Amino acid sequence: MTALEIQGQAARSAERVLAVAGTDKKNAALAAIAQALLTHKDEILAANAADLDAARAAGMRPALVDRLALDESRIAAMAEGVRQVAALPDPIGEVTHTVRRPNGLLIGKRRVPLGVIGIIYEARPNVTVDAAALCLKSGNAVILRGGKEAFRSNQALSELMRRALEDAGLPRDCVALVQDTSRESAWALMGLTEYLDVLIPRGGAGLIRSVVENARVPVIQTGVGVCHIYVHEKADLPMAAEILYNAKCSRPSVCNAAECVLLDRAVAEDFLPMAWERLRGKKVEFRGCPETCAILPQAVPARDEDWDTEFGDYILAVKVVGGQEEAMDFIAEHGTGHSEAIVTADYFAAQRFLDQVDAAAVYVNASTRFTDGFEFGLGAEIGISTQKMHARGPMGLEELTSSKYVIYGTGQVR
Amino acid sequence: MTALEIQGQAARSAERVLAVAGTDKKNAALAAIAQALLTHKDEILAANAADLDAARAAGMRPALVDRLALDESRIAAMAEGVRQVAALPDPIGEVTHTVRRPNGLLIGKRRVPLGVIGIIYEARPNVTVDAAALCLKSGNAVILRGGKEAFRSNQALSELMRRALEDAGLPRDCVALVQDTSRESAWALMGLTEYLDVLIPRGGAGLIRSVVENARVPVIQTGVGVCHIYVHEKADLPMAAEILYNAKCSRPSVCNAAECVLLDRAVAEDFLPMAWERLRGKKVEFRGCPETCAILPQAVPARDEDWDTEFGDYILAVKVVGGQEEAMDFIAEHGTGHSEAIVTADYFAAQRFLDQVDAAAVYVNASTRFTDGFEFGLGAEIGISTQKMHARGPMGLEELTSSKYVIYGTGQVR
Repeated sequence: MTALEIQGQAARSAERVLAVAGTDKKNAALAAIAQALLTHKDEILAANAADLDAARAAGMRPALVDRLALDESRIAAMAEGVRQVAALPDPIGEVTHTVRRPNGLLIGKRRVPLGVIGIIYEARPNVTVDAAALCLKSGNAVILRGGKEAFRSNQALSELMRRALEDAGLPRDCVALVQDTSRESAWALMGLTEYLDVLIPRGGAGLIRSVVENARVPVIQTGVGVCHIYVHEKADLPMAAEILYNAKCSRPSVCNAAECVLLDRAVAEDFLPMAWERLRGKKVEFRGCPETCAILPQAVPARDEDWDTEFGDYILAVKVVGGQEEAMDFIAEHGTGHSEAIVTADYFAAQRFLDQVDAAAVYVNASTRFTDGFEFGLGAEIGISTQKMHARGPMGLEELTSSKYVIYGTGQVR
Repeated sequence: MTALEIQGQAARSAERVLAVAGTDKKNAALAAIAQALLTHKDEILAANAADLDAARAAGMRPALVDRLALDESRIAAMAEGVRQVAALPDPIGEVTHTVRRPNGLLIGKRRVPLGVIGIIYEARPNVTVDAAALCLKSGNAVILRGGKEAFRSNQALSELMRRALEDAGLPRDCVALVQDTSRESAWALMGLTEYLDVLIPRGGAGLIRSVVENARVPVIQTGVGVCHIYVHEKADLPMAAEILYNAKCSRPSVCNAAECVLLDRAVAEDFLPMAWERLRGKKVEFRGCPETCAILPQAVPARDEDWDTEFGDYILAVKVVGGQEEAMDFIAEHGTGHSEAIVTADYFAAQRFLDQVDAAAVYVNASTRFTDGFEFGLGAEIGISTQKMHARGPMGLEELTSSKYVIYGTGQVR
């Protein structure tokens, strides 16, 4: 057996214990983890300092170094995050859809953990703790495979969580960190069919594509967002400008930020200067279709690939369309099924958009930036699913569960 | 573009129309399909006769020829099945989890179709109609890829459904049959990531394993069942014998049939002769562990692989265990997560089994044969999922749906 298979087998055994551990025990373990993060912060910071030294020596860009860096306040925030997960309702055990069949069988659908969840992620070490806390609360064992840049930090964090689990009377193997950060180890994890019930990639488009293309275990695809704001001819234009500003500029690096605005021809001449004015403070580059460039001299011509790009930056693709059908066709072709918004005062246009646009979240008169587990009231988020199977949109604790039918009989045969 | 990609693109367009078609229109199309099956039964029978001739000429086994064969009563049963699907409640459009957030956003989770569903299946042509009806009712376009033995029958059935769809005012491309039945076409379908939202294999273990191993599109794994009946020391033994008889003998070829009985040592001497007596009329072969063979002279020694085999026949693996923990460990090791049953009069043993056994359906004092969409009251069944993601156990119409968040705003920004 490989080292990874041994970890998988241990996680599988641990999961069987965790699945029936009960809310009190899981919450006690989460409290122990939160406390251990604070108590052992010096260990964590020392490991992180070693990662940072290596990263700087390897010439990592400052923005990435910042994502890798931990300090006392970031550790305190992780601990607080774990406490908040402990305070959420336990999704496990609820029985729904209970029916008494004509033959007397009592059949219910009981919510159970998925089992063993794999998480593949990149630089941020806080994912190690966030993801583990959400998996534990929902009764799942977790196998974490972080980026090599954060290995020492992740190792310190996971070891501390494993000790805290054991102190709380749960198997330490409920949390495991893959010890090999080579590309081969990611491939091996994607093929660990016997021990992984689901694999969730968290990171950039390249990572997610690689997992979707190569995994043989079931995957929940997360996070790539080419989101549109469609300004309908009956839009309140100042409202549209505020929504666009927020969707593009409040945090351009995240997946629910807007990348493209679609404008009805009837309002293009009025709206474009207004939008330019509202966004110019952030030096947003407008990459426009020919009509846009003709109206707005500050726009630069868009290239074909701009319509399909998640810029993650202060760049906005701008296209004038001939009406709602063209806008919705454009979204169907270029959207990634993440978040799409229409700005309109027209009732029928709003309903048509909600009905026909196929995305995890479809908005009328609001910013796409709200697509988020906390904003939607789920209390937590492990990622945003852009696939249709299992979970769609922000995933909270319930989305980390499965079900099993439990059947109470008195000797029934068929 | 390949022929399959062209079909995929057409299905994607058709799906956008079907997704918003409304219940009346979908039901009218289903009624038209049911009628067309009856009206055009001679076309269907002629195509089927050609398939049967070719199959016999190729030396197909009589049992398989029977699965392939259609007659008037089987066609009438297909039409009646389509009418029953039309009569089921439409799963699409319901909005759940609606919340008003503190910022005034109204957020709801609307049930929507999955999109385009691929079905890969083997000999039975009735799957062509059953699967299409369930997909249509749930608003999904479907790409069918049946076995080559049934190609002429499937072609007649699908063309008739496509004409009926068009007559009812829906795109004919809501239903498509892959025209190439080579192994390569199955592989191409498994990789059709741009046009398929989910792929469901229906057939034997080999087909399902091949799809799970090779597909790059999301898969719902169905149907392999190595199911156990565990006779606990506190079991009502005559009840256990009836349940075992039903689970093994009522239809041995199906996935919810039992393959293995586990016996507590305390009851093995009493139960084995009773079970033999009850099952001997069906000439069931008992393949036993050494203890079983020592007690029951009619048993033959089990080979290692018998503990992991879905016999699909009048063969039963029999093992004596030292108690419930050993039985549950054995099930965890050799079960396929389909259906597992305990027979016991002990309250705590029953609860422990329901809690700790990890399967789609877990029974106390009833036959595993009940794991079925109709028996569970779902009104229909497209297969039985043995995975944990998305759907688990019998899948009805709701399991062919996804969701999208719909958000009603008044200009909210974050």
